[in-house]
Amino acid sequence: MSQSAPAPPAESVGVVRTRHLDLPEPVSLECGRELRQVRIAYETYGTLAPERDNVILVCHALSGDAHAAGVSAAGPAESGTRDGFAAEERDGGSGATLGWWDGMIGPGKAFDTDRYFVVSTNLLGGCRGSTGPSSTNPDTGRPYGPDFPVLTVADLVRTQRAFLEALGISRLAAVAGGSLGGMQALEWAILFPEQVQAVIAIASTHALHPQGMAWNAIAREAIMADPAWQGGRYPGTGRAPEAGMGLARMVGHVTYLSAPALETKFGRRLQAGDDIRHTLTEPEFAVESYLRHQADSFVKRFDANTYLYLSRALTYFDLARQHGEGSLERALKPVSARTLLIAFSSDWLYPPSASQEIADALGALGKPVEYHQIEAPYGHDSFLLEEARQIPIVRRFLADGTEETKRSP
Amino acid sequence: MSQSAPAPPAESVGVVRTRHLDLPEPVSLECGRELRQVRIAYETYGTLAPERDNVILVCHALSGDAHAAGVSAAGPAESGTRDGFAAEERDGGSGATLGWWDGMIGPGKAFDTDRYFVVSTNLLGGCRGSTGPSSTNPDTGRPYGPDFPVLTVADLVRTQRAFLEALGISRLAAVAGGSLGGMQALEWAILFPEQVQAVIAIASTHALHPQGMAWNAIAREAIMADPAWQGGRYPGTGRAPEAGMGLARMVGHVTYLSAPALETKFGRRLQAGDDIRHTLTEPEFAVESYLRHQADSFVKRFDANTYLYLSRALTYFDLARQHGEGSLERALKPVSARTLLIAFSSDWLYPPSASQEIADALGALGKPVEYHQIEAPYGHDSFLLEEARQIPIVRRFLADGTEETKRSP
Repeated sequence: MSQSAPAPPAESVGVVRTRHLDLPEPVSLECGRELRQVRIAYETYGTLAPERDNVILVCHALSGDAHAAGVSAAGPAESGTRDGFAAEERDGGSGATLGWWDGMIGPGKAFDTDRYFVVSTNLLGGCRGSTGPSSTNPDTGRPYGPDFPVLTVADLVRTQRAFLEALGISRLAAVAGGSLGGMQALEWAILFPEQVQAVIAIASTHALHPQGMAWNAIAREAIMADPAWQGGRYPGTGRAPEAGMGLARMVGHVTYLSAPALETKFGRRLQAGDDIRHTLTEPEFAVESYLRHQADSFVKRFDANTYLYLSRALTYFDLARQHGEGSLERALKPVSARTLLIAFSSDWLYPPSASQEIADALGALGKPVEYHQIEAPYGHDSFLLEEARQIPIVRRFLADGTEETKRSP
Repeated sequence: MSQSAPAPPAESVGVVRTRHLDLPEPVSLECGRELRQVRIAYETYGTLAPERDNVILVCHALSGDAHAAGVSAAGPAESGTRDGFAAEERDGGSGATLGWWDGMIGPGKAFDTDRYFVVSTNLLGGCRGSTGPSSTNPDTGRPYGPDFPVLTVADLVRTQRAFLEALGISRLAAVAGGSLGGMQALEWAILFPEQVQAVIAIASTHALHPQGMAWNAIAREAIMADPAWQGGRYPGTGRAPEAGMGLARMVGHVTYLSAPALETKFGRRLQAGDDIRHTLTEPEFAVESYLRHQADSFVKRFDANTYLYLSRALTYFDLARQHGEGSLERALKPVSARTLLIAFSSDWLYPPSASQEIADALGALGKPVEYHQIEAPYGHDSFLLEEARQIPIVRRFLADGTEETKRSP
């Protein structure tokens, strides 16, 4: 069906097409393996300065993609990683496929495209255009499936770096992201301190806490327990672990929201009628129906193996273990970037205490760091919903950096 | 194998055998259906007074059974509903099958069997001796499976009442339970106020909050999504939805514990070796391994359909909706029992606020109510672990009632 994309809202970066770039070199991974013929899906917003010094890399979270801002030229079927509360709040059910951080990226927004050249890539291991487990393994001509190498956040970051080098970009004015995206930002600052001027890590952590690890483990178990997963070799079989993915999404979704937010939105409202219908199999309450809807819409757009690989990567992420022999402070020693941390009061998956720990460690090292806790009721999802309160914080943080640069040439 | 039961610990009620009783009449259910030939599994501890006025009914939670106290004569294979932290704390890995509330029931304990006749039944819909979905449907000669009627907590309570009548017991000195067990205690006090002298509801609520409803919905979805569930008709097929049940248990288990408890017990400790092994499918962290273990041991002892029916019943439970046209205070008007409420600070599934709401409503009605919040780190599971601090509260509450009875003959 030919259907024109809806008109972009004011201050949007407009209609955007995702592009692709094939990395010229293989990518070496922490597990010791190497990936050849790596393709990266990406979008850019704004204009690269001749000095190439105005680049901001934004990093997506577990279920995101390269489409961070504007309206996708591809339309709803191909795009749209906003869902849950975020989708309802932003798209109003219009079917428009706004980027997952559209509220933050654009002219006059937090990541001001009148000034910055904002780059967004789909992560290695992704399922939205970048090389991942559903891509063809050049060694076999068949999809990788479970033969895709197990990834770490450091692998994701090294791949982003190789991608940026291919674009001719060697220096980042900032690297920014929420959740798993914030992990990437922190990893960048440690692995490549000389290339990162500023880090913005929102609703993130230096290491997921054990309860968060448990939720991620359950989500992965749900996928792997689905017989349609077929040991990961489902691509090309006409079957996919949709039931398991749906369960993984339900678990994830509840952890992204706060208990009070669910109370406010659904309470104990029945889905139909005035009384219970004594049914085991049908959703009886609005919150039950909502979860099924979340599951159904997610499995249509996301690949189960990608979910497994990225969930594993964010569970492995642990700056103190990886870089500090158990000490977060030691791990952060190489950082030369200014750091901005934002956390949300009701986020119990990536709690404010984790950001506070990073702030304390950077502070103890004498490194420039700002930490803001925003009072917001939506849990972890706040980082996609509370843009109005993040924008001034991020704008001022980025402007301060420019001032400093000007002051100390 | 012939293996003698281990010696019971001091103050134990000793070795106990679960008995069975067939109800003389069919049970009428809230859904409009009737169940014939209902069998109830039960245990009793202590001695029934000639006046039959010293009976305490204890009610089990979602995964419990009639074996509340003492050492099971049946041995580990047939018994043992302690698991998780509770099993480790109490059984010390000895394989002893202590009742799920053994710390609370016995000579000199909270429910003092030197004084009280304590009765414990396996719930209707259960899988540990009482009639449930795996029982034979007398109309067909085959297991009920999904043809078993959908139950409510009121159905569970009416069945307990019919059972007690068959034993010749018409008055309860107290009805007590934690979690779903506390729901039953509250329901008893509203449905049969003239028969209940005291209610003890621990780590319970008047209605599960939406996040708790969501976790229960996910657990049920996990079971029903397992192809081995076969629409609920798996009994007799040689296959059971073990993967789905395992997932349900993992979800439940994490909700029973607090995030700090998981942090203390597991942290981010690796399961094997000093570094990550880059594996998707194997448990890498101790907390991941622990969850798998929980799942594996649970599926051996519990029936998936029972899980579905009891999870649905506790989700439906809503005193204000059922009895108060939306008002908790109105719902509690019929109560004539004295009420003791205990909640635990770290219980986020049945939070202290829910007990506070019940206390406030009973207080506003001028009814005798005591509410204690215990500071404890173990989350919802605290009601099975923090017995030392519950015992004096319960003993004094029960003694006060005896004093009052003596004072006002």
